[in-house]
Amino acid sequence: MSMRAPQREPASDLPQRITIYEVGPRDGLQNEKTVVPAEVKAEFIRRLAGAGLETIETTSFVPPSWVPQLADASEVLQLLGDDGLGPRRPVLVPNERGLDRALEAGVGAVAIFGSATETFARKNLNRTVAESVEMFAPVVARAREAGLWVRAYVSMCFGDPWEGPVPVEQVVEVSRRLMDLGCDQLSLGDTIGVGTTGHVSRLLDALDAAGIGADRVGVHFHDTYGQALANTLTALRHGVTVVDASTGGLGGCPYAKSATGNLATEDLVWALHGAGVETGVDLESLVETSVWMAGQLGRPSPSRVVRALAGSPE
Amino acid sequence: MSMRAPQREPASDLPQRITIYEVGPRDGLQNEKTVVPAEVKAEFIRRLAGAGLETIETTSFVPPSWVPQLADASEVLQLLGDDGLGPRRPVLVPNERGLDRALEAGVGAVAIFGSATETFARKNLNRTVAESVEMFAPVVARAREAGLWVRAYVSMCFGDPWEGPVPVEQVVEVSRRLMDLGCDQLSLGDTIGVGTTGHVSRLLDALDAAGIGADRVGVHFHDTYGQALANTLTALRHGVTVVDASTGGLGGCPYAKSATGNLATEDLVWALHGAGVETGVDLESLVETSVWMAGQLGRPSPSRVVRALAGSPE
Repeated sequence: MSMRAPQREPASDLPQRITIYEVGPRDGLQNEKTVVPAEVKAEFIRRLAGAGLETIETTSFVPPSWVPQLADASEVLQLLGDDGLGPRRPVLVPNERGLDRALEAGVGAVAIFGSATETFARKNLNRTVAESVEMFAPVVARAREAGLWVRAYVSMCFGDPWEGPVPVEQVVEVSRRLMDLGCDQLSLGDTIGVGTTGHVSRLLDALDAAGIGADRVGVHFHDTYGQALANTLTALRHGVTVVDASTGGLGGCPYAKSATGNLATEDLVWALHGAGVETGVDLESLVETSVWMAGQLGRPSPSRVVRALAGSPE
Repeated sequence: MSMRAPQREPASDLPQRITIYEVGPRDGLQNEKTVVPAEVKAEFIRRLAGAGLETIETTSFVPPSWVPQLADASEVLQLLGDDGLGPRRPVLVPNERGLDRALEAGVGAVAIFGSATETFARKNLNRTVAESVEMFAPVVARAREAGLWVRAYVSMCFGDPWEGPVPVEQVVEVSRRLMDLGCDQLSLGDTIGVGTTGHVSRLLDALDAAGIGADRVGVHFHDTYGQALANTLTALRHGVTVVDASTGGLGGCPYAKSATGNLATEDLVWALHGAGVETGVDLESLVETSVWMAGQLGRPSPSRVVRALAGSPE
């Protein structure tokens, strides 16, 4: 027998409830070698919602040649019908053409994907940081006009595989410019997973001082150096209540060397439920979903909770 | 290129310096299927010391039939000579016979291994918790008489695979009885890795209220549910300055189902050096040591930092 749930011992320094922003269907599947059929993607999203995840990024309207894994974005949304729409089902849009496709599909929320560093902006968007903000301006303006909720990702906030350490001031500057376009939420990405706890504190403090409070910030950690959960808890202690995670620990970044998977949603849920923080998630259902998805992908889940619980059924 | 060291951003809520209590040669190798030759164990310990680890648990004087992996305890210490002795080179002793062998070998420090739960005490020591404390009394008394430094492990502090949740009061009671025997340091073991951050806080607060302050406590987390680093940082925020870790993430517990490896020393060092906490460790040397040891064991290291750094040499 293993323990199926953590002993509940509330942590006084954490929020009472947080929102998990599930990125598995987009950030996760985009980085899997196996191309998953649209029907499986739609079923994955339905199961995630069934397990209690309220906010799910469903797909990405990038050009199919960039990310063949998500070339079926429109088809996935068609299969989902109303379950794929509304303000809690954002889709990634890289530019105005992506926004057009998202609007055609009838979505209620979009996310843009910026970079804190020049090198990654060039590699990922073929633009300077300043040019990318210019490119995003009409995307955000038109999305807002259409009544959509808008999120701005900032990648490479804690380190860059080509540039090394990234100054906190540089991240604040890019974040401010993107939020000034009118975005509703910022997501701070540690794309290569190098950040540590004091760094998280300093960045959140600096953003707050620049007028971007924790109530508008989500955090997005990768576990490349084993720091994702510890950094997430530090962010929650600073008042952040939105956490990006990927069910089963799927994902990574195809353009960044040595990037491995996102924080696994199950490992996050174990930490939070133990600490008395509500998430709305049913952990058993989520683990079942990861086991099912691992079967579709033909390999075991990297989530430690999934391995611990699925490896020893009662 | 990957980043070889984290960006240094001091965390104001952590101690300036901590002591890593390295358990790889004992807790790690005891749980590997491969039986490593004594020469390799001695070389492993020498390399760990060379990488800056000041406190290293070298081996265990349990009966060879219990743990064949460490049947060569005396030989390892002979090979190490003075490098294996002194107050910073504890050995595990399960009982008086083990202490006799440790004294013969000339060690300067020993550790006893108690349990917070009756089921694990019975399975691991073939005794009740009360009987095990009685058994340890003469071990600690004689060790102190001989001038040795003494540590008391308490296992199953956060959950037990047979009993489930473990009441904090029960852990405090066992800890108090063991420390009352005259031990210098307590090590709180989350043997099956189920604990979470609020639970860590509550246990440390309860121990403090019972007269066992953070200055006499070490923490020992396993990463079975992905919680080890986050829980360790919580303990450090409560004033703990001794952390058990296993280089390369070696280890587990052969008597506890679903227990996986200890917190990897490298992942801990990444977190601490990033946060400006001194450890005395040279991370590059430690990673080299893990890569070498993984070669001896014929399998890759489970440490995420080792995989990130060793997978992408500059």
